[in-house]
Amino acid sequence: MEGSYPLHARNTVRRHRERAKYDFETVHQIVNASPILHVSFLPAAQQDDIYPTILPMIGYMGSFEGPSDGALDVYLHGHSASRVMRIAGNHGPDGIPVCIAATLLDGIKLSLTPFNNSCNYRSAVLHGDASIVTDEAEKDYALRLITDGLVPGCWDNSRVPPTRAENLSTSVLKVHVVTASAKINVGGPSDDRKDLQNDEVTAKVWTGTLPVWNAVGAPVPSATNKVAQVPEYVAQWRQDHNSENESYARDAIDKGK
Amino acid sequence: MEGSYPLHARNTVRRHRERAKYDFETVHQIVNASPILHVSFLPAAQQDDIYPTILPMIGYMGSFEGPSDGALDVYLHGHSASRVMRIAGNHGPDGIPVCIAATLLDGIKLSLTPFNNSCNYRSAVLHGDASIVTDEAEKDYALRLITDGLVPGCWDNSRVPPTRAENLSTSVLKVHVVTASAKINVGGPSDDRKDLQNDEVTAKVWTGTLPVWNAVGAPVPSATNKVAQVPEYVAQWRQDHNSENESYARDAIDKGK
Repeated sequence: MEGSYPLHARNTVRRHRERAKYDFETVHQIVNASPILHVSFLPAAQQDDIYPTILPMIGYMGSFEGPSDGALDVYLHGHSASRVMRIAGNHGPDGIPVCIAATLLDGIKLSLTPFNNSCNYRSAVLHGDASIVTDEAEKDYALRLITDGLVPGCWDNSRVPPTRAENLSTSVLKVHVVTASAKINVGGPSDDRKDLQNDEVTAKVWTGTLPVWNAVGAPVPSATNKVAQVPEYVAQWRQDHNSENESYARDAIDKGK
Repeated sequence: MEGSYPLHARNTVRRHRERAKYDFETVHQIVNASPILHVSFLPAAQQDDIYPTILPMIGYMGSFEGPSDGALDVYLHGHSASRVMRIAGNHGPDGIPVCIAATLLDGIKLSLTPFNNSCNYRSAVLHGDASIVTDEAEKDYALRLITDGLVPGCWDNSRVPPTRAENLSTSVLKVHVVTASAKINVGGPSDDRKDLQNDEVTAKVWTGTLPVWNAVGAPVPSATNKVAQVPEYVAQWRQDHNSENESYARDAIDKGK
């Protein structure tokens, strides 16, 4: 999918511009690879508060009506009585301004000096307007999207569709993305020439990268589980997730060369 | 360290109150176990913008003067020219209102129905006032704290102290915490009685937990590294980090019983 999110003062990366990306594909991939999204909003109107707040939420990017230009919406779910849902519900279809951050840590890079230490990472920051999904077909679409976004195939391998009570107590927030940017860092550590030429320092200080990834361990059946075998959709996803994440973290180190 | 952060409408957990914690120890442990912190602030004053924004940052909790009551400050570092540092710098010692979120995903819990799926996690959300550290001794303290917070022992095993140029180009943000809360979920998946009593459903749908943790892979030396052996402080930390994180994720599943 070609195309990019528009540039604005809000999302233009100024530090390490060479790491910045604005294209749909990069932004969508980072958000959808992140099991947890951090969502910031302002509870001020309700609580006379000066502080923004952040909620960890689960969500996925998609487009109910099919993307016209390649941009996608972020769908987030939560309990209907939660604060963010109530605030968004009070604001109607225009929504409330939110920021969504998705961050994947891929490596810790140790340099000769703490100042040059850094990380390999994939990070996306999106700004947009969050409103409650009221269309039933869109809500069904979003709940399935979010469920399968965490573990693909989960929806079809569960008891669906949701009951009326389940549907009432879950709300879906749709974030229309206004601006977005991604930042990706790869490679090994870098050092200043002066440190690299200091034999005393280079003889003493090890430099290199520790690859980091999100590992999924062997499934543990619940106390009430009655299915003997871990289903293929879970076993296969786990294997793919671990090998892809580990490979990405290792390969990222070489990419900088 | 006994004691808790004060309750306020802003940080009082309303959904799943049984998962909420406000004590210093729990909040500090979650923040300090998180390699990445998400920091939200309002760039509005500078940019006439309605959206809050989020930055992924690296930081650690500590107290330069020694904790009087057990509360700690959050120290975050970044480039002196970065936007959050410039905005905080313009606001002086009172600081700017920020929110900091630290989230550790410990497991994915698959229930009979997507509605009851959930996660094991440790999450902390802190609100406070962020100002630039101007005292040189405090900045030294914070830079060491943050460096060793990521990989303990790194400071003493690197070329230190920082040069004058390094010190000038790095700023440290100190967040005086006003309110904080933590939320912890453990255990296996839960299901509604009606689904558990439906033999057709229980015969078909596997339920259980996938433990999740942050894995650190084998260190990869940099192209310029001249130290043959991975230092003990790195090797030992990696081993401890992996075994502690994996154990936590596995043990969390049983804790709910």
